Order: sequence, then C-alpha cells, then structure tokens
Amino acid sequence: MVMQEADRLDVFFNPRSVAVIGATKKIDKAGHVIFKNFAYNKTRGVFKGALYPVNPNEESILGFKCYSSITEIPDELDLIVVVVPARIVPTIMEEAVTKKVKAAIIISSGFKEIGNGELEEQIVAIARKAGIRILGPNCLGVYYQRTGVDTLFLPETKILTTGDEVIATPRPMVGDIAIVTQSGAFGVAALDFLAGRQIGISKFVSFGNKCDVTESEMLHYLLYDEETRVILLYVEDIKYGRQFLNIAKEVTLKKPIIALKAGRSSAGARAAASHTGAIAGSDRIYDAAFEQSGVIRARDMEEFFDMGKALAMQPPALGRNIGVLTDAGGPGIMAVDECESNGLTVERFSEETLQRFQKLKDEGVLPKFAATSNPVDLTGSVTDDMYEVAVDLMFQDPSVDGIILLGLHHLPALREKYIESVAQVANKYSKPIVMCDIGETEMALYTRSKFDKLGIPAYPSPEDAARAMKALVNYGVYLKKRHMAEDYIVKFLKKKRQA
Amino acid sequence: MVMQEADRLDVFFNPRSVAVIGATKKIDKAGHVIFKNFAYNKTRGVFKGALYPVNPNEESILGFKCYSSITEIPDELDLIVVVVPARIVPTIMEEAVTKKVKAAIIISSGFKEIGNGELEEQIVAIARKAGIRILGPNCLGVYYQRTGVDTLFLPETKILTTGDEVIATPRPMVGDIAIVTQSGAFGVAALDFLAGRQIGISKFVSFGNKCDVTESEMLHYLLYDEETRVILLYVEDIKYGRQFLNIAKEVTLKKPIIALKAGRSSAGARAAASHTGAIAGSDRIYDAAFEQSGVIRARDMEEFFDMGKALAMQPPALGRNIGVLTDAGGPGIMAVDECESNGLTVERFSEETLQRFQKLKDEGVLPKFAATSNPVDLTGSVTDDMYEVAVDLMFQDPSVDGIILLGLHHLPALREKYIESVAQVANKYSKPIVMCDIGETEMALYTRSKFDKLGIPAYPSPEDAARAMKALVNYGVYLKKRHMAEDYIVKFLKKKRQA
Repeated sequence: MVMQEADRLDVFFNPRSVAVIGATKKIDKAGHVIFKNFAYNKTRGVFKGALYPVNPNEESILGFKCYSSITEIPDELDLIVVVVPARIVPTIMEEAVTKKVKAAIIISSGFKEIGNGELEEQIVAIARKAGIRILGPNCLGVYYQRTGVDTLFLPETKILTTGDEVIATPRPMVGDIAIVTQSGAFGVAALDFLAGRQIGISKFVSFGNKCDVTESEMLHYLLYDEETRVILLYVEDIKYGRQFLNIAKEVTLKKPIIALKAGRSSAGARAAASHTGAIAGSDRIYDAAFEQSGVIRARDMEEFFDMGKALAMQPPALGRNIGVLTDAGGPGIMAVDECESNGLTVERFSEETLQRFQKLKDEGVLPKFAATSNPVDLTGSVTDDMYEVAVDLMFQDPSVDGIILLGLHHLPALREKYIESVAQVANKYSKPIVMCDIGETEMALYTRSKFDKLGIPAYPSPEDAARAMKALVNYGVYLKKRHMAEDYIVKFLKKKRQA
Repeated sequence: MVMQEADRLDVFFNPRSVAVIGATKKIDKAGHVIFKNFAYNKTRGVFKGALYPVNPNEESILGFKCYSSITEIPDELDLIVVVVPARIVPTIMEEAVTKKVKAAIIISSGFKEIGNGELEEQIVAIARKAGIRILGPNCLGVYYQRTGVDTLFLPETKILTTGDEVIATPRPMVGDIAIVTQSGAFGVAALDFLAGRQIGISKFVSFGNKCDVTESEMLHYLLYDEETRVILLYVEDIKYGRQFLNIAKEVTLKKPIIALKAGRSSAGARAAASHTGAIAGSDRIYDAAFEQSGVIRARDMEEFFDMGKALAMQPPALGRNIGVLTDAGGPGIMAVDECESNGLTVERFSEETLQRFQKLKDEGVLPKFAATSNPVDLTGSVTDDMYEVAVDLMFQDPSVDGIILLGLHHLPALREKYIESVAQVANKYSKPIVMCDIGETEMALYTRSKFDKLGIPAYPSPEDAARAMKALVNYGVYLKKRHMAEDYIVKFLKKKRQA
C-alpha cells in the first residue's frame, strides 16, 4: 500500500463537509447526540466544515436546516455519518453513490454481528461502485479533538437519582496515543480510563464489523499521522492476516503498536464470535504474527494502557538489563521479581559502578548501609538529593539499559524536590526511566502526577512499572534487530525535547 | 500451639500500659512521632492505657512526665516501644527484664539486616530470660485503631514546597482485613492504598527481622481475632517452615490467608537477602507450602489487595465454573479469557437456563439479539432492569459457581438503579459475585464505590475482577476438600447479614 491509499482515509478525520443521516431532536437517540457533538464543535469553531442534518421529518435541528435526503444537499459531501435502522442503510448508500460521497461512518448495528451478513455485503457492494470507504457498521466511529469530528453517541454526562449530573463518557485531553478498537464499548471505556489518568490521545477510531476499512489500513494511515506517536490496537480478530503482517511490519519500524487481542481462550473465542461475528482463530497464530511484525502484545487491559503510556513518554531500551533504584526494600524486590518474570534481567553493576557507589557511601552522600549492587536501596534514610546522584550514576553504567525508580513518598526525609532533579538527570541520557510510588491518597497522587508531567511515566505498583519497562525493552530490542533503533531514538528525543 | 500462646500476643494490641523509650520533643524523630501518636490517641480517649515517655534528657514531653529509665516508672508495664540506637537496646532489654515487662516492639534498625546478627541474638537471649515477647527489630510495629496503639513513625502528612500540607501516610478505616508484613515500607504503602480505596483493616503488624515473634505466631493470634476476616501476609522469607505449615493449615480452615511472597526470582532473592537478611530459598518450595496449607498466593501487589477485598466481602465459590454477565462484548471476552487463564471455566449454561433466557428474549424482557449462553451480553440496549433478571437467572443455574458482572456505565440507558437490585438479588444466594466497571472519572468511581458499599467488590478492569474471582474459587475449593466449606459459608453469611 502506498501513501495515497492512507491519504484517502484522511477524510474520516478532516472532512470539509459532513451530513448526519438520522439526526433527530429526540435527546435520547444516537442521531441526536452525534449531531449535537458536531453542532457544538461547529459553534465553538473547532469543527470548521459544513454540517447538514438529514431527516425527512424535521425542518431544522439545533438551528441547522434539515434535508430529507443527502441528494438534496446543494454542496459537495465528504463524509456521511449513518445512524438509521440497518434495513434503510442500502438506500442511503445508493444515494451516497449518486452524491459522490467520499466516506461513510456507519454507526447502525444489525448486520453481521447478528447474522445479517448479506445486508452487510450489500452495502459494501454499493459503496465499492463509487469507491466510498466505509467505517463500521456497528461501531462508534471517530473522535478527533482537533477538527471536532466526534461520532461518539454515548452521553458525556448522566443524571443520578440524586439529581446530580456526573461525567459518564469523558473525552481525554490531546496527546500522542491513537486508539484503534474493534469494540466500541471497550473504546469508550478506554477514553474514560485515559481521561481520568490524564493521558492524552491523538485520534480515536472504533471500527466495529470492519466491512470495508480494516484495522490494518487504519494502522497504515496512522503511520503518516504526525500527531500519533504510539498506537493502541484492540482487536477480537484480524481480517486479512497477510495485509496485517505487511502493514504492521512497516508501521512498527517507525511507531510502536501495542495490541490487546481478546478471545485468547477457547471460551473467549466463542464469545468473540457472537460479539462481532469474529472468527478468532488460534491464539498462537496471533502471538506469532505479533512477534514477527514487532507488535507488542499486552496481557491485559491495565498493561495495555501502561505500555502505551511508557512508549509515548520514554525512548525504548536497547537491551534487557534494568537498574532498579528504591527507597523501600520490599517493593524493590517486587520490581526485580516482575522484571525477571518478564524476561528482563537485574544484574550486578559493573565493578566501576560498584566502586563509585562505595565511594558515595564512604563520603556520606548515600547511607552507609544502602544496598548498591542492583537493586540500589537507599533505605529509610533516603533524601531527595540521594536520588539525583544515584540515578545519574546508574545511567552511566553501560550495562544498564533502563531504570525503574521506586520513590515511596512515605519515608520522612523524602519530599518532592527529587522529582525535578531526577527528570533533569534523565534528560541527559537516551535510556528510558519509569517510576512507581504506591498509594492512593494525596501525596502518592501528587508524586505520580508530577513525574508524568515531567515525562517520566509513573505507576501505582512496582509490577506495573516493571511491565511498562518490558514494553520499552521489547520494542527497543525489536528496532535494534531491524537496525532502526538509533533512528527512532534520535527522532523521539528530538520531538520530546521540542515539546 | 494452643490458644494461650496466641493470647500472649494480645498485649501488643491491648496493652494496659505503654512506655516509649526514646520519646523526644524533636519533631523529625521517630521517637517523637510514635509518642505523639499515643499521646493524641490518649487525649482523644481512644488509647485508654497508661502512657510513659522515657528519655533521660527531658522533664516532660507533650505534657507527660518523662522518666529517665523504665525502672523508675512506678506502675506495672505491659509494653515497651523501643526507638533508641541499636547498641543501647541490650541495656534497655535488661531493664525490661527487671521491670517484668511483657512485650517489646523494637523499632530500631541496625541488627541482622546490616550484618549485626550477634547484637540481635543478644537481645533475644535477654528477653527469653523473662519471657518477654519481641516484635521486630527493624520494624514499624503495630497499628490498631480500636485501642489507639500506633507505632508508625512515618509522618501522616507532609508539607510541599508550595506550603500545602498533604496526606502522606494515611490510616485506613476500620474493617475486616489484617495486614501482616515483613517489610515496613510495603506495609505503609499498603495502608495508603487501602485508605484511598476505602478498604478497611482490622489490625496492622510489621514484624521486620522477626527475631522472636514470627509471622506464623501472628497468623495464629489472628485466627482467634473476631475482628479479622481475611489475613494479608507479605513475606520475603518464612522463618520456621514446619511451624508455618502447621499454623497456616489450622488458620485457613477458618480464615483465608493471602500471601505475597517477594523474592521469587533469583535476582529478587538476592535483593531480599540484603534487605532483611532473609534467606528466601527456592520459590517452588514456597509454592508447595502455600498450596498444601490452603494459603492463596497473589502474583503481584494489585492481585494481593484485590483478592483480600473479594474474600472480605464475598463467600467463597464451591466450584470453578463462572457465569459472566456483561453489557459490553469486548470487556466480557476479556473477563472470560482471564478466567480461563486462571484455571476457571466459563461453560455454556444448562439447557434449562438457556431456555429460560430464550423466553426472556421472546418476551422482550432482554434484547432480542442478546447473547445468553455464557457469557451473557445484554448489549448496548441494556437497561437497569435487565441486570436484575439476568443475575437472578444465572445464580439459579446449579452449574454456575459464581458470577462476574461487568456493568460498563457508558451505555445510554444504564443508570445506577441496577446496583441496589443486583445487591438484593445476590443476597438471596450463597454464591459469590464480583463486578467491574471501567473508567477513572466520576460515574465509574461512583458505580464502583456504590457496589463496594453494598458488599459486592468492584474492580476497574475485567481481568482484575476475574483474578479476584479466582481467589474466591481457590479458597472455596480448598475448604470443600477439607469439608469445611459449608461451615465457613454459613458463618460468613451470618456475619455479613448482621453487618
């Protein structure tokens, strides 16, 4: 596939004109929520395209003149969003052909996922006549904050029985991570998770039954997307294995792809089949395909997001040996355990590093009884300053490919001063660092958030941090094998330092 | 061991009189923080015992008359808390023998963990002369909210550079879970985690170098503790294997023990050795010991707490087959996958259940296209009422041993009404149920918290919920093999319904 092909998907994100077919005034309907999203974004000046509600029974919706059919719309139409019952969709698509529409997001369900494969084939056949690209059906479509394209029909807030209005489906802030998901429900759950954790996204695509545009084509589009640094891919099956392998191989040389593949168990595969009509196939085949194409597979939902955050914020590691720095013995051991369980090593430092640590202890810079052979345990006597010197020394050891820092804030003399100095030290090196502080109250949340803001991904458990490091290692080792590591790291750091 | 022996440990939690040796006015010192904890708790009427600061250089501390030695204290002394340099501890212990003290919490470090094994043996030898029980050294000691014994010396709040004071080491609310931990730092991190997640604890013990009182003795004490329903045990090594096996076997017939054993990898074991001088031994031996004695082993920190929460709130499952109920296909599959990865099954329902579900679909009670063979997928058309009928029907299927409910709140017609009705239905049965909602913003936090309050443990990811269910299954299957399941469940439900 060439860049032009990917270019054609751009209309889903940057349409000059959009019609919402099935737009309505009824507030509980998807057709209302979606049209309102566009209308609001247009009012705010975010959505800059032309906007047309289509509904034969309305004169106007939210102040926009309503059309009974897209064929009546006087101007050219880039994108239609279809929110009408499944049986009407073929008629709509015929009209789209007449109207020379470029792309359609079909939100409507009632196709292959409930056994109506024929109806789905019918709309594909119509669309193909005019080269209309289809996203969906049975999907949530697109959310792209910069242009105001937002076809998520789930209500942004809900009213509790107490009368209180609460956030129910938030939109996360702008960031580097693209979400590409087969499951719409998982997709909005992801948005909710990322919004709460203050992790930003570049683009969101839910592709549902993928009758036309495949997950692979979307990956290819995102390869050229300057705003996307990391791609999170949720799939239950992959449509064309060969296409996926080719595209994923191309993409992963430039951008990490993290995959969460559901349906790995036999009962899970059975459930997947009844969900989107997916034929999951043997899980081992997926494992092999991901490995071959440099796609990093997440074991579960939390790892999926944790890995995405790590790769968005830190350069990959060029080897498997990790330095662990802690102020708390137990959690340090937990991080080491999890590293080894995940194919990383935590080896004794080089003799030179050991001697340099000994000197720091002799000089009273570090506690006399600190363990310093890796892991480094600064003990309960830890101060802010100790982290700075220890991190610097560890980064200098050529055998250390990345650092896991545990900064348990509970210890008396540890304040928040070390956060900035550690971030400054880390910026001098091209090796990755991730951190963990344990706790769910004020100081822990403050510490983690401050690290995040300074570009060091922070995690709430030692094992989460170790698994995030695994992603940095696996991606780095893959790139190195393909002789692309240096190129990637140089570009990554350049972009990071610009930001 | 008999009950009397366990009884003797009660003095650590219910002392009639306490002396803090090394109490000081210097606010940054552990001796100050610990004395202040007792003094405040006494002022508030929580600590009802006599309280004596011991420090030869002070007249009084926080309004309490100060003694230069415990031998000068006019009354009997149950418990001493020792916060003086290691080299002075033997002298203190000699005085404790003279004074006929019953127990000592030795906070001081500088013993076996830094190679001073001899000094540690010396204090044990002195204590043994008079039968004084020692907790520690190199530990945080005890936190027991009901009697105000609080030897945690880590500051409850910290001052940021902004001048703001924030919670740093919170104390969780009162609840059913006992924390027994070798690592003090991990212990306070646990308190912070549990406080933030609104999970209550019954007692907290950090035992450090365990020169005298072992983890096993503490487990035995907690067996008789009415307030403790579940025991969370963090260890890096276990001192006397035989003692542990015997006691754990006895305890687990009545109360679940969940163990987080750090140092499972070879690098982790090396780190553990330098932390508390622990000889970790082969990890497989621990696995075998835990399995033999019915102790549930957590894979990582998050699972440790998640399992504790599940066993504190729900009865165990009597078999491995789980019903999964969801409103979101993808996350439902993720839960099923994780069940199967953890030795649980998600089998098709019995014919009768399938027919009853079909009838509900035919009657329009459930969506026509809902998947109902297990997992049950109520689809995006889900309403509050559907959960109530579906849960009830699933509980009635004799092949279902427990239920994982996924209630993704994002779907339009799902509000919070179903939470109470699901809790009511669940209360009719003796099988366990756990739930998951995904998201980190308002509605997700509200939903999970409401489920928690109604006794159904809620988790932020499908896999977390599945792993929590694993603990309920593994404990139930163990009890059943020992013919203790019925007895346990009857008592558990009685207590739950009283609460």
